[in-house]
Amino acid sequence: MITSTSNQGLKRIGNLLAKKKERDLEGVYVCEGRKMFFEILRQEPELLERIYIAESAYEALSTEEQVELAAVSFELVLDSVFDKVANTVTPQGFLAVVKRKNYTLEQFLPTSDGKMRLILLETLQDPGNLGTILRTAEAAGMDGILLSSDSVDVYNPKVVRSTMGAINRVPILYVEDLHGAMRELQSRGMKLFAAALDGSIEYQTADYGESYGILIGNEANGLKPETADAADVRVRIPMEGQVESLNAAVACAIICYRARYS
Amino acid sequence: MITSTSNQGLKRIGNLLAKKKERDLEGVYVCEGRKMFFEILRQEPELLERIYIAESAYEALSTEEQVELAAVSFELVLDSVFDKVANTVTPQGFLAVVKRKNYTLEQFLPTSDGKMRLILLETLQDPGNLGTILRTAEAAGMDGILLSSDSVDVYNPKVVRSTMGAINRVPILYVEDLHGAMRELQSRGMKLFAAALDGSIEYQTADYGESYGILIGNEANGLKPETADAADVRVRIPMEGQVESLNAAVACAIICYRARYS
Repeated sequence: MITSTSNQGLKRIGNLLAKKKERDLEGVYVCEGRKMFFEILRQEPELLERIYIAESAYEALSTEEQVELAAVSFELVLDSVFDKVANTVTPQGFLAVVKRKNYTLEQFLPTSDGKMRLILLETLQDPGNLGTILRTAEAAGMDGILLSSDSVDVYNPKVVRSTMGAINRVPILYVEDLHGAMRELQSRGMKLFAAALDGSIEYQTADYGESYGILIGNEANGLKPETADAADVRVRIPMEGQVESLNAAVACAIICYRARYS
Repeated sequence: MITSTSNQGLKRIGNLLAKKKERDLEGVYVCEGRKMFFEILRQEPELLERIYIAESAYEALSTEEQVELAAVSFELVLDSVFDKVANTVTPQGFLAVVKRKNYTLEQFLPTSDGKMRLILLETLQDPGNLGTILRTAEAAGMDGILLSSDSVDVYNPKVVRSTMGAINRVPILYVEDLHGAMRELQSRGMKLFAAALDGSIEYQTADYGESYGILIGNEANGLKPETADAADVRVRIPMEGQVESLNAAVACAIICYRARYS
């Protein structure tokens, strides 16, 4: 039982929660949710690198859950110490260091049967939006998400929480050169659709085909003009009233679902 | 110039920001955004009941803006005092008490030409979701929003901010008896579509017609079974992977946009 916040493992968790640099360096992230933790434990236990459980959270587990846990190694933590380390307002009693899955651009290219559905995000900033987009992407059957390297960190604790587990199931890749990646995808036959306020056609009239990428830009400024121009089609979502733009996750959902269920 | 937080007007603003009860009692809300403030000033100045402006924010205005402001009465506030009252992390220097618009259920009933598009929200809890739904509703050309009285307060400062002005443009009504309101709408020919995980048809195959209401439930639990049953059609959004549900604002957007652009 860990009884002090000066424990080296807990100090490491604190650093991983707080610092993108530390997370990147170690190639991991921290899972704080009870439900998400058990999902990983059941489906991909090899991703769990370290596990800390608050004493009372462990005692509250069912016998079955305690048996499941016996298959991996974990450490118990005194409740008061645990709560000091956890990042959430209402900690659920679980903190796990999870190994990231590493992807290469090759894995996002259309397969020989020409199928691949991607979301491409440029300079997205809001953690909640990214979490919602990941969750929506999985539901809409998207095959992966590419992000420009100046986008919000998907391993940020706020994003991890709001993905509700989708973070482990949707392939994600940050790219330094988004335009280069776009050209690579296009050269393999993928059609790229840029969500743009001044799009030349309405989103619901576009022909998305079987292999497409949906480009969504920054919350305040949208896509950079040169990025929208580099896409094959600029699509706009009609807006009535005085609304200047839709929420980025909402715009992404409307287009992805239309492309999938037209 | 107001130089103390003990000023009665500022104390009132503090109360209105913090307490739903006070807002309801006075039938007002507080606008904190610079952009939204000027929108109201230009379009519906009669809604502005009291206006407080931080000294530096006033000085930063253009001459045209200062002229516009001269048409109404406002009070200047010492910056340090203003920042203590404002609810946001980064106050924009404007605090206005805004009169609410009052609607009755009659105004949400289909007109004689049979047109009316509504969103009905049951027990929605998250301020950010409600703000996003309001913004999406305006963009999708919806005519109004009905909310069960146990939903989050639309005049909560967080909601007001996230609506980006749509709060003044989309008619909103809280109803004590949501089922009674649903029957009333149905008796006038409106078809009600309940978003439900076990919906009997997929949302994209439904025939929405010209007069419809989209029912969206609580973030964690969805619609109450008896509410979904009381609708005309239960529609489901197909979800792949292991996603259990979509974000409420995302689900609402997908269905509203499909109904509008099918």
